[in-house]
Amino acid sequence: MDEVRIIEIKHSVFKSNEDEANKLRDFLKAKKVFLMNLMSSPGSGKTTTLLKTLAKLKDKLKIAVMEADIDSDVDAKKIKSVDVESIQLHTGGMCHLDALMTKQGLDNLDLDNLDLVIIENVGNLVCPAEFDTGAFKNVMILSIPEGDDKPLKYPLMFQVCDLVLINKIDVINYFDFNLNKVCENIKKRNQNCEIIFISAKNDENIDKFANWILNQVNLFKEDN
Amino acid sequence: MDEVRIIEIKHSVFKSNEDEANKLRDFLKAKKVFLMNLMSSPGSGKTTTLLKTLAKLKDKLKIAVMEADIDSDVDAKKIKSVDVESIQLHTGGMCHLDALMTKQGLDNLDLDNLDLVIIENVGNLVCPAEFDTGAFKNVMILSIPEGDDKPLKYPLMFQVCDLVLINKIDVINYFDFNLNKVCENIKKRNQNCEIIFISAKNDENIDKFANWILNQVNLFKEDN
Repeated sequence: MDEVRIIEIKHSVFKSNEDEANKLRDFLKAKKVFLMNLMSSPGSGKTTTLLKTLAKLKDKLKIAVMEADIDSDVDAKKIKSVDVESIQLHTGGMCHLDALMTKQGLDNLDLDNLDLVIIENVGNLVCPAEFDTGAFKNVMILSIPEGDDKPLKYPLMFQVCDLVLINKIDVINYFDFNLNKVCENIKKRNQNCEIIFISAKNDENIDKFANWILNQVNLFKEDN
Repeated sequence: MDEVRIIEIKHSVFKSNEDEANKLRDFLKAKKVFLMNLMSSPGSGKTTTLLKTLAKLKDKLKIAVMEADIDSDVDAKKIKSVDVESIQLHTGGMCHLDALMTKQGLDNLDLDNLDLVIIENVGNLVCPAEFDTGAFKNVMILSIPEGDDKPLKYPLMFQVCDLVLINKIDVINYFDFNLNKVCENIKKRNQNCEIIFISAKNDENIDKFANWILNQVNLFKEDN
């Protein structure tokens, strides 16, 4: 696989993240680039879901992916292997991306030639939910093996998300996971949250997720 | 199930956590109480593993469990249901426990009548690894559905652990997870780390983990 660019990003604690996130959204509106933030626990299937989704979108949109990790570049290399622009952000030990860190990543992309940038955030259900990256929409993946009680334990993550993907639906028979219960728990946290059941491994309902993204990008382009 | 005590703990950023952690270890040595810190991603099976392990240990040791979560008390209630002393620590949104927060939890336990206190840390592979709780040993659970590449992406977690439990070994046939590869990846991060393969659900090798804990407590008692 090709070499990927690794950006060592620095975290600033001195500026208000909310202000920076709003400034970043204004900048992206002017550039007509839609930014989506994808979050989950480690191992929920973010990269596999992205790989399958990018396959359905890459001929319709000009896309780049920013892979945020503490260390390694395995994910950025995987994305690059399906011919989508991809950069690796190393967070210097930080457990999340904030808006300034996101901006540092975006500065390494040719935004004039992009419709959509997807952030694959650090695998973590806590901190990434606390820091607005400047994205227009937040999506999170909860996988079946993690359990249907996660919206009770990690409330903020479910509050800030516009869409929850319930992944690894192909292994549901091997785990004690109740689909009605998880929807109830998610709605308890966030009445307006959309939910799609997927199996990234088996390409199940990935088209629904791809269409959701396409729809968001089209609405954004109409508005700006 | 019984009501459980919920402690709202406060985080102090003003003192050196390392100093506090060492002070806490001195305090616990004097009290002859062994403190173990259990970490993992959300949904790796920390609580189920603890429930099965406590069943094997509770007649041999006087044990209490401190359940750290952002919100909810579902885990503390489960531990209490097997007749083990259990308190819930609410971290006030914080993604980890530090030594002062741990001390606040311990102040709510009758340490003169305990051999072992187990912390179930917040589900997170990043931040809990950065903050020494004052525990004598760190244990983490990596579950099969999370993938064998996690030691590459979350290096510090694997560096600070004395023992890694590879859980959900019962579902290995449904996931692309290589047992030799994960051991290799763990050893890359931490040559001295012990590894036990378990299925908490099926009680597989839980006796090995229980014996590991018993051995650690006995060594600690001999030394102090």
